[in-house]
Amino acid sequence: MILESKLPFKYLIGIVKYELIIVLTVGILTHFSAIRLTAFLPEMPLAIPAFLGTSISVLLSFKMNQSYDRWWEARKVWGAIVNDSRSLVIQLQSFLNSDQTDNIKRISYRQIAWCYSLGRSLRGNLNSIENLDHLITKTDQAQISKHNNYNLAILQLTAADIKELRLNDAIDMHGHIHLQETIIRLTDSMGGAERISKTVFPSTYRLILHFIIYLFVITLAISLKGTNNTFVIPLLLLISAGFFCIEKIAYHLQDPFRNLPSDIPVTDIANTIEINIRQLLSEEISKGDSKANDYFVM
Amino acid sequence: MILESKLPFKYLIGIVKYELIIVLTVGILTHFSAIRLTAFLPEMPLAIPAFLGTSISVLLSFKMNQSYDRWWEARKVWGAIVNDSRSLVIQLQSFLNSDQTDNIKRISYRQIAWCYSLGRSLRGNLNSIENLDHLITKTDQAQISKHNNYNLAILQLTAADIKELRLNDAIDMHGHIHLQETIIRLTDSMGGAERISKTVFPSTYRLILHFIIYLFVITLAISLKGTNNTFVIPLLLLISAGFFCIEKIAYHLQDPFRNLPSDIPVTDIANTIEINIRQLLSEEISKGDSKANDYFVM
Amino acid sequence: MILESKLPFKYLIGIVKYELIIVLTVGILTHFSAIRLTAFLPEMPLAIPAFLGTSISVLLSFKMNQSYDRWWEARKVWGAIVNDSRSLVIQLQSFLNSDQTDNIKRISYRQIAWCYSLGRSLRGNLNSIENLDHLITKTDQAQISKHNNYNLAILQLTAADIKELRLNDAIDMHGHIHLQETIIRLTDSMGGAERISKTVFPSTYRLILHFIIYLFVITLAISLKGTNNTFVIPLLLLISAGFFCIEKIAYHLQDPFRNLPSDIPVTDIANTIEINIRQLLSEEISKGDSKANDYFVM
Amino acid sequence: MILESKLPFKYLIGIVKYELIIVLTVGILTHFSAIRLTAFLPEMPLAIPAFLGTSISVLLSFKMNQSYDRWWEARKVWGAIVNDSRSLVIQLQSFLNSDQTDNIKRISYRQIAWCYSLGRSLRGNLNSIENLDHLITKTDQAQISKHNNYNLAILQLTAADIKELRLNDAIDMHGHIHLQETIIRLTDSMGGAERISKTVFPSTYRLILHFIIYLFVITLAISLKGTNNTFVIPLLLLISAGFFCIEKIAYHLQDPFRNLPSDIPVTDIANTIEINIRQLLSEEISKGDSKANDYFVM
Amino acid sequence: MILESKLPFKYLIGIVKYELIIVLTVGILTHFSAIRLTAFLPEMPLAIPAFLGTSISVLLSFKMNQSYDRWWEARKVWGAIVNDSRSLVIQLQSFLNSDQTDNIKRISYRQIAWCYSLGRSLRGNLNSIENLDHLITKTDQAQISKHNNYNLAILQLTAADIKELRLNDAIDMHGHIHLQETIIRLTDSMGGAERISKTVFPSTYRLILHFIIYLFVITLAISLKGTNNTFVIPLLLLISAGFFCIEKIAYHLQDPFRNLPSDIPVTDIANTIEINIRQLLSEEISKGDSKANDYFVM
Repeated sequence: MILESKLPFKYLIGIVKYELIIVLTVGILTHFSAIRLTAFLPEMPLAIPAFLGTSISVLLSFKMNQSYDRWWEARKVWGAIVNDSRSLVIQLQSFLNSDQTDNIKRISYRQIAWCYSLGRSLRGNLNSIENLDHLITKTDQAQISKHNNYNLAILQLTAADIKELRLNDAIDMHGHIHLQETIIRLTDSMGGAERISKTVFPSTYRLILHFIIYLFVITLAISLKGTNNTFVIPLLLLISAGFFCIEKIAYHLQDPFRNLPSDIPVTDIANTIEINIRQLLSEEISKGDSKANDYFVM
Repeated sequence: MILESKLPFKYLIGIVKYELIIVLTVGILTHFSAIRLTAFLPEMPLAIPAFLGTSISVLLSFKMNQSYDRWWEARKVWGAIVNDSRSLVIQLQSFLNSDQTDNIKRISYRQIAWCYSLGRSLRGNLNSIENLDHLITKTDQAQISKHNNYNLAILQLTAADIKELRLNDAIDMHGHIHLQETIIRLTDSMGGAERISKTVFPSTYRLILHFIIYLFVITLAISLKGTNNTFVIPLLLLISAGFFCIEKIAYHLQDPFRNLPSDIPVTDIANTIEINIRQLLSEEISKGDSKANDYFVM
Repeated sequence: MILESKLPFKYLIGIVKYELIIVLTVGILTHFSAIRLTAFLPEMPLAIPAFLGTSISVLLSFKMNQSYDRWWEARKVWGAIVNDSRSLVIQLQSFLNSDQTDNIKRISYRQIAWCYSLGRSLRGNLNSIENLDHLITKTDQAQISKHNNYNLAILQLTAADIKELRLNDAIDMHGHIHLQETIIRLTDSMGGAERISKTVFPSTYRLILHFIIYLFVITLAISLKGTNNTFVIPLLLLISAGFFCIEKIAYHLQDPFRNLPSDIPVTDIANTIEINIRQLLSEEISKGDSKANDYFVM
Repeated sequence: MILESKLPFKYLIGIVKYELIIVLTVGILTHFSAIRLTAFLPEMPLAIPAFLGTSISVLLSFKMNQSYDRWWEARKVWGAIVNDSRSLVIQLQSFLNSDQTDNIKRISYRQIAWCYSLGRSLRGNLNSIENLDHLITKTDQAQISKHNNYNLAILQLTAADIKELRLNDAIDMHGHIHLQETIIRLTDSMGGAERISKTVFPSTYRLILHFIIYLFVITLAISLKGTNNTFVIPLLLLISAGFFCIEKIAYHLQDPFRNLPSDIPVTDIANTIEINIRQLLSEEISKGDSKANDYFVM
Repeated sequence: MILESKLPFKYLIGIVKYELIIVLTVGILTHFSAIRLTAFLPEMPLAIPAFLGTSISVLLSFKMNQSYDRWWEARKVWGAIVNDSRSLVIQLQSFLNSDQTDNIKRISYRQIAWCYSLGRSLRGNLNSIENLDHLITKTDQAQISKHNNYNLAILQLTAADIKELRLNDAIDMHGHIHLQETIIRLTDSMGGAERISKTVFPSTYRLILHFIIYLFVITLAISLKGTNNTFVIPLLLLISAGFFCIEKIAYHLQDPFRNLPSDIPVTDIANTIEINIRQLLSEEISKGDSKANDYFVM
C-alpha cells in the first residue's frame, strides 16, 4: 500500500524499468541504424506512429476498464464479506436464546478466523489457519486441516453448529433458515473471490499490446531519423513510459490478491471485521487498538 | 452544492488554478527556450502533440466513466437507504400490534438518527451522533459510544429491540424475519457507502494522466515555436484547462462523500427521510419545514 | 413524443438554435478578424482543431453513454412498476378469500391511481392526485394530502389495508408477507424514479464540453482563414451542429421525466397498467379504449 | 436467421443499398461540381474528413454498444423464461400430491402455450393464441380473448389454478408461495420483453449519425477533387459502406423482436421449452422431433 | 490452456496465419500494381489509412469488450455452479436427519456428475453422462437417457429425491423449500451457460471489421507506393497482424465453451467441485489427488 500524499515516483519508474531498458535499446538501435541506412530506408511518414499511438490509447483504455472492473468486483466481494459477517453476529443475537452467549461467541470468533484465513488463502498462503488459535479451537483446526479448502471447511463447521443448535431447540426453524441463507451468501462471496483470484486475464491480449507499443516505438524512431539523437530518445522513453505505466497499473489491478501495492487490503478488512464483531459481542476494545489508518489503499 | 442555473465559472477556474500556473510556467519556459535553442532543437512535428491530445481524451474518458460510476453507485446506496428506511416504518406498522405506537416511534426515530449519523461518519465526523438527542435516547447513546462504528451499533440496537418485541409476542416470527431482512439490507447499504468512502481510486493512474498532459503541453509548445508568444501561450492554457478541468471533475466525483460541490447531499437526503418518516407516523409537519429545495445537486 | 417515421428535422435544428447562432457569430468574427489580422496572427495548424474534434467525439460518447444509461434505468424502473402493479393484483386474487372482491378492487384501483400520481409527481405536478376521484376515495385523498410525498402515503394506505385484511383473517400470514414484499418493491421503484429525477448530472462536465466545442470552432475558423467565407462558415455550422445536437440529445435523455420528446411516457404506461388491471379484475373494456398507439416514443 | 458458415455477402450489401445509392449520387455530384467549381471552391484539407471519420467510428461504437446490450438483455429475458418455465414444472412435481398428474399436465401445457404466444405477440401477431388448441383448452382461450394482453391473462389463469389447488389442499401454503414467486418472475420476464420491444432507441441520434456520415462523404469527395473519378467514387463507397453496415447492424440489433435476421429466435426457444417440458412430464418424444439445429442465430 | 509464463508466440501467429497470407498477397499485389499503374492511380493521402487504422482500434475495442463480457459472464455462471454445488451439500447436511447419510451421498454424487455432464454438453459431447458410473446409478442413467437435455433430467431426479425425503419426513417443509431454491439456482446457471453457448455473436459485425482491415491494408499499400517493397510489406504484415490477433482473441473469448485455449476450464472446475464435495462428505482424499495446477487458464 502506498500513501496517497507521497506516492513514490520511483515506484512507478520501477514497475516499468525492464520495458524502458528495451525501449532505450530499441530506440538507440533503430535510430542509429536508420541514420546509417538512410539511403536504403525510405521515409516513414509520421502518420503511422501517430495513428498507432492513438490506437494504443484506445486498447489500453479497454484493458484499464476491464482490470478496474475486476478490482472493483473483488472489492465488492470483500464488502459483502464485511456486511455478512456483521449480519451473522446480529442474526445470532436476534434468533438465539439468551443463554447461548457462549455459542454466539464461538461462532462469531470462528467467523473472524474465516475472514483472516480467506485473505491468506487468496494471497497463496497454504496453511491459512496458523496463528489463529485465539479464534478457533484445536478440535476445529484438526477437522479443517483434513480439507483442501480450509475456508469451505470452516463454513461447514458453522452450518453444523447451527444445525446442532436447532436440534437442541436453541433456535427455531425460521432462524435456522435465515442463518443458513447468510452462510450461503458467505459461500458465494468466497467463491467469487476464488474465481477472481484463479482466473487469469487473457494474457495474449497483453502480449499483442506490448507488441504494438514496440511497433510504435520503432516506427516513431525511424520516422524521426532526421532529427538529432539527444531529442528523439528521451521523447521515445517518455511517451512509451506513459503507455507502459498504464499497462502495468492495469496488469496489477487485474489480480487484486497478489501482494501488490494496489491489492485489496484483505488483512486490514479482516481486522476491521474483528473489531466490529468483538464490539457487537460487547467486548471492551480500547479504541487505540484499531490503530488510525494513516495510509490509504493505492 | 452549486445552483445549476448560475454555475460559477470562477469555480471551475479555481479547481485547476495550480495546474494552470504550472502549464503557464512550463509553456513560457519551453517556448522561450525553444526559440532560443532553435538551432539545437529539431523540428517537433505537430502530429506528436496531436495524437497525445487524442490519447488524453481517451484516457480521460475512461477515468470520467469510472468516477461517474462510483458516484452513481454512492447515490444508489443512499437511494436504497431512503427506500429501506421508509419501508422499515411501513413494515413496523404492518406487523406490530396497534398498542405498540411508542415502540414504533422509538425505532423510527432511531432510524432517522442512523441516517444523519451515517452521513456525518462518511464525511469524517468522528462523533457522528452529537446533537441527535431528540431522535435517540441517552441510554442508547451511551451504548453506542462504546463502539468504533456508531452506525453498526445503532442497527444492533434496532435488531435487539425487534427481538425484544418478538419475545413479548408483540410481533410473530414471520414479522421478525421480515424486519430482520430490512436490517440486513440497511447493513449492506452502510457497508457499501463505507466501501466507496474508504477505497481510493488507484492514484497512480492519475499521476500518469497528469504526466501525459504535461508531455502534451511541452511537445505542443516546442512544435509551435515558430509562432509568436501571444498566441501559443493562451492556446496551451485553454486546451490544457479543458483537460485538467475534466480530470478534476472526475477526481471529485470519485469521492462522493468529501464535502465537495459534487457530493452526494447526505444531509439533505437524511432530512427528506426525516420528513417522510414523521409523516408516516402521522406527525404534523408544516409543509414549509421542508424548505423548497431552491438548488440542485451539482 | 415524436413519430419515428416523420421525425421533424426542424425539431433538431430547434434544440440547438442558440448554440448555432453563437457558432455563426463566433465563426464570422473569428474568421473576419483572422483575415484582417493575418499579419499578426500566426498560422494555426489544422492538426489542432482536428485532434480537438476527435477528442470532442470521445467526450460526447462518454456523455451519451451515461445519459442513455440513466434513461434506460428510468425505463426499467417503470417496467418494474408495470410488473409489480400487475403482480399485486394477481397476488391479491391468489391470497384473498373469494368474498373479498370489493377490497381487491379498492386496492387495485388505488394502485392505478398511484401510477398516475407518481408519473405526475415526477413531472413536477405538486397536486398529483387531482382528477383521480374515480380511482381513489375522498377519505384516502384527505389522508394523503397531509403528506409531502403523496405516493409514499398511497403505499402506506395499501399496507394498512393489507394489515386490516390480516387482522380480519381474510388473508393469512404468508400472504401478508408476500404482499408486503411487493409493496417494498414498489417503494424501491418509487425511490429509484425519485433518485433519477432529483439527481442532476454534473453540470460542470457539460460546461467544459461546450467550452471545448467553441475552442474547436475558433481554432478551425482561424486555421481556415486562407479560404473564402462562403465555404468556411457553413462547414463550421454543420460540424458544430452535429456535435451540439448529440450533446443536446444526451442532455435531454439524462432527465427522463422533464416533459421532453425523449421522455419516458409515464402517462401512457400508467394507462396501460390501468387497462391491464381492469381486465384482470374482469371488467369489460372495449378494446378501442386502448387507442392504437400510432406513435412510438422517440 | 443466417447460417454462420455461409453468410450471404449480398445480404450485407442489401441492407445498405439505399444509403450506398445516396452516397454514389452525392459523391458523383460533389466530385463533379468540385472539379467544375475548382476556381470557386477552396482547398478542403484532408484533416477534416479524417477527423470526421474517426469521430464516426467513436459514435458508431457507442451505438453498437447500446444496441448489443439491448439485444443481449432481450436474450437474457428469454433465457430466464426458459429457466423459469422448466422450474415451474419441476416445482409443480415437487409440491403437488402424486394424484395431480392431470393438473400438472394442464398447467405445464398452458405454460408452453404462453411461451409461443409471448413470442408471437412480441413479433406483432395480434391473435397470438391461434393454433395452440393442443396446448390450451377452449375455455381458457375464451377467457383469454377478453383481454388486450393475452399473455398476462394466461399467467392469471395459472395463478388461479394454483389457488384452486391450494383450496383443495392439493398443495400447502409454502408450495403456493413458492409457485407464486415463479409466476412473479415470469411476469417480470414478460414485462422486460415488452419494455424492450416497445421502447424505441432515440431515433434522433441515428439521424445525426447519418448526417455526419454524409458530411464525411461530401468533405472527403471535395478534398479529393484533384484525383480522377475512377478512384475517388469507389473509395467513398467502400468506406461509407463499412460505416453504414455497422450502423445498420446496430439498428437491427436494437429491436430484437422485429423478424430480422439478428432476431432472438423466439419460436425456436419456445420449441426447446416444449420439448424440455414434455420430457419432464415423461412423454415420449422421438429425439428426431427436435430436428438438429443446423444453423446458428446470426 | 496455455502456461502464462511460456506463452507460445507461435500460437499467436498460428491463429492468424490465413489472414496474414491474404494480407501478404493483397499487399504484394496492390503495391506491385500501384507502382506499375503509377501513372493511372492518383496519390492516396496517408490520412485515409491513418484514420481507418484509428477507427479499427475503436471498433476492435468494442468487440473485445463484448467478448470479454461474455467470457466473464460464462466464468461467473460456473462460479455460481461451484458455489451452489457446495451449498447444496452443506444444506443437505443441515436439513436432513442424521440417519440419511446414504441419501446425502447419493444426491451429492449425482451433483458432481451433473457438473461433469454439463461441462461436456457445453463442449458438444452428446453422450455427456458416459463414464460417470461411479457417480450416478444405472437406474438414474436409464431415466436420464430418455431426455434430450441430460442435465435438466439430472436436476429433475434430485428434485424428485428431495420430494421423496419430504414425504418420508426426513426433511421438513422449510428444508424442502430451501433445497428447492438451490435447484432453481442450478437450473438458472445451466440455462445461462446454454444461452451463452448457443447464441452466436452477430457475425456480420466481424465480417465488416475484416473488410475494414483489408481496406486499411490496401489503402496503406497504395499510399506507400513511393517507397521500396522490402519496407512496406513487413510493415503491412506487422500492423495487420496486431489487428487480426486482437480480433481473433476476441473471437475466441466470445465462445467460452469451444475447446479453445481461452476456454473456461469446465473439467477442472468440475474436478475441484468433486474434491470439495467429497471432503464435505468426510471422505479421505489424499491431497495429491488434486494435482497441483501447474498452469493457469489463458
